[in-house]
Amino acid sequence: MSLIVQKFGGTSVANTGRLQNVADIVTSTYKAGNQVVVVVSAQGDTTDDFIAKAAELNDRPSKREMDVLLSAGEQISMALLAMAIQKLGFPVISLTGWQAGIETDINYSEARIRKVTAERIRSELDRNRIVIVAGFQGINKQDDITTLGRGGSDTTAVAIAASLGADLCQIYTDVDGVYTADPRLVPDARKLEAITYDEMLELATLGAQVLHNRSVEMAKKYNVDLEVVSSFTRNPGTKVKEGSDMEKMNVSGVARDNNCARVAIINLPDEPGVAFKVFSLLAKHKVNIDIILQSVGQKGRKSITFTIPEDKAEEVGKILNANKEGLDFEDVSINTTVAKVSIVGAGMASNPGVAAMMFEALASAGINIRMISTSEIKISVLINEADSEKAVRAIHQKFFNM
Amino acid sequence: MSLIVQKFGGTSVANTGRLQNVADIVTSTYKAGNQVVVVVSAQGDTTDDFIAKAAELNDRPSKREMDVLLSAGEQISMALLAMAIQKLGFPVISLTGWQAGIETDINYSEARIRKVTAERIRSELDRNRIVIVAGFQGINKQDDITTLGRGGSDTTAVAIAASLGADLCQIYTDVDGVYTADPRLVPDARKLEAITYDEMLELATLGAQVLHNRSVEMAKKYNVDLEVVSSFTRNPGTKVKEGSDMEKMNVSGVARDNNCARVAIINLPDEPGVAFKVFSLLAKHKVNIDIILQSVGQKGRKSITFTIPEDKAEEVGKILNANKEGLDFEDVSINTTVAKVSIVGAGMASNPGVAAMMFEALASAGINIRMISTSEIKISVLINEADSEKAVRAIHQKFFNM
Repeated sequence: MSLIVQKFGGTSVANTGRLQNVADIVTSTYKAGNQVVVVVSAQGDTTDDFIAKAAELNDRPSKREMDVLLSAGEQISMALLAMAIQKLGFPVISLTGWQAGIETDINYSEARIRKVTAERIRSELDRNRIVIVAGFQGINKQDDITTLGRGGSDTTAVAIAASLGADLCQIYTDVDGVYTADPRLVPDARKLEAITYDEMLELATLGAQVLHNRSVEMAKKYNVDLEVVSSFTRNPGTKVKEGSDMEKMNVSGVARDNNCARVAIINLPDEPGVAFKVFSLLAKHKVNIDIILQSVGQKGRKSITFTIPEDKAEEVGKILNANKEGLDFEDVSINTTVAKVSIVGAGMASNPGVAAMMFEALASAGINIRMISTSEIKISVLINEADSEKAVRAIHQKFFNM
Repeated sequence: MSLIVQKFGGTSVANTGRLQNVADIVTSTYKAGNQVVVVVSAQGDTTDDFIAKAAELNDRPSKREMDVLLSAGEQISMALLAMAIQKLGFPVISLTGWQAGIETDINYSEARIRKVTAERIRSELDRNRIVIVAGFQGINKQDDITTLGRGGSDTTAVAIAASLGADLCQIYTDVDGVYTADPRLVPDARKLEAITYDEMLELATLGAQVLHNRSVEMAKKYNVDLEVVSSFTRNPGTKVKEGSDMEKMNVSGVARDNNCARVAIINLPDEPGVAFKVFSLLAKHKVNIDIILQSVGQKGRKSITFTIPEDKAEEVGKILNANKEGLDFEDVSINTTVAKVSIVGAGMASNPGVAAMMFEALASAGINIRMISTSEIKISVLINEADSEKAVRAIHQKFFNM
């Protein structure tokens, strides 16, 4: 008997037919002799509907009340799924975030899980019940409802799997695994049987959009075996786990991120502590910085260029201009028509030829590289957004279709 | 400074405009220097929508999961109302049933409140916040969500008012008070300024449909001053309270109840304990019995006739026929085309002329009386359903338009 956590996203539970499909998947797993904990998101458009209703009443609703509202979404879907499973004749119980002991910090709308006190889940499993838990939500020390922000339901599933010592955490989604590239861009992209946490982390961060990096980070930390699998097909998915047999792998995937902007701060003073000032200012505003490049400017000054998420571009422009005097720079230029394309693979650092192959693929396709960033397991380049699809195809062709 | 509990039903919070109207009422009360606790129902059709969704998945969903589902409705409306109040610039916080300490017994879908542990409400009031509480829902000793069944939100409001020792509990609804008869039947019905708990109880039980009797019983028990008031007009409503100045009142209202069926059990044995057997059997099936009449039948046997809610008629027929042998009766006849018309008034018992006046009014209108029941403060007659409107008008004319 194994203990399996299965997470189903909003599209997987969007309507009656899909809930019945999920009930089939869950009860098949249970019938096979496993203990099953199911984590569900809100149904399809529920969250958007709630946000629209709220917007009619208040253009700036408090985050606390927004969390009260949004968390009703998973409460609805978990009760409906429980009813669908009851209809099939299986014992089941649904639990909200607070009932399931999902304890978070105090940050409404983007809370982080501090602890899962899983006694209730455990006692329901001991009574041979399928346990459904509301994803995306928890409770803070003030007994207030919190939500976990983007990727929240995946994170709930991994946290519960870690807390229970589950044998496997399956993330059901609308794709059937992790591919060597986005199959919509690269039709002959191949599904990976397995991938390491670190590779998955790089791919998640780089915009592969299969798993949110928060959940992968947590899975890595607590060594939870993940599987990305489709709730629509019944094909085997992609396993995400630590594994020495994966060392031989080279490039495991190509990813593209169009939600990217390049910020250049021109002619800062060339003195110690200047970069620190810039980036601590942005950190205070919770802006994630990615690739950083520092170059010598004119008249004994220097320029700093870096990338940020595109949706932060306007805010960052305002923050920097508001601090122009303190930072003592000449100008800021922001370019949102850039994209980041990356290759990810575990064995990459020990194989210097990989970077050369990537640059060669881009050169052959006539694509200009504007910035480069490398790590142990990835190489990223910043290019014009218009070139990004072509770049993914060219690189994929180079590494996977030789 | 007074502490006021205000309860708003589903129609009062049905959409954005109505939520804004409720926000106006609440904040006006707060601005006038009062502490305010608001109890809300689910928005308009939410509950029906949830029930329809559930029915698509399961024709007999468990009551526990149904309560999980339905309780999301008040969570949605309370968060939206909080946002509307925040928009007006007032401090406010919303609390679910479990957050507000509404502790109930274990009976899903028709739980009764055992206790309100109001520390959280009190501490939020101490912080000068308007406190919104989800009506209709609570938590049982297993930490499961329960709902209170019909009249649940009114009951939540009264329970909170009792627990906090509130100065007033206002029930906002779509009528602006308690009338001497249903204004839709009797156009010149008059609004009552005040009414006693007992009178209100009789009127509620008798189908006046303004307040549910559970909430009035609780208000009487804990001496909570109630006011029935409209959320659409700003007219003064009707106060419900104990009051010696009300002794002089005679008939305070005429009520009609068409949800009524007459059950006759023909030729039972004429021995001690027979009535007990019949009514304990029905009590076991949670059937409320109203007027009871026992008469001598044929061959040393007797018949028992009583009224029940019309929607229980089919079930009662089945229960009795299934026990025909044990109870040893000849036949059961059930008539659902009857109605109960009643007059209610505090001083009635000490004024024997009242019953005579009522019967005279019915006789003049040519209406046949089939059963009669009297109490300290009411006289009810069972008549043909087709005559019920005419009966209400005739009686109202007799007592109020002399």
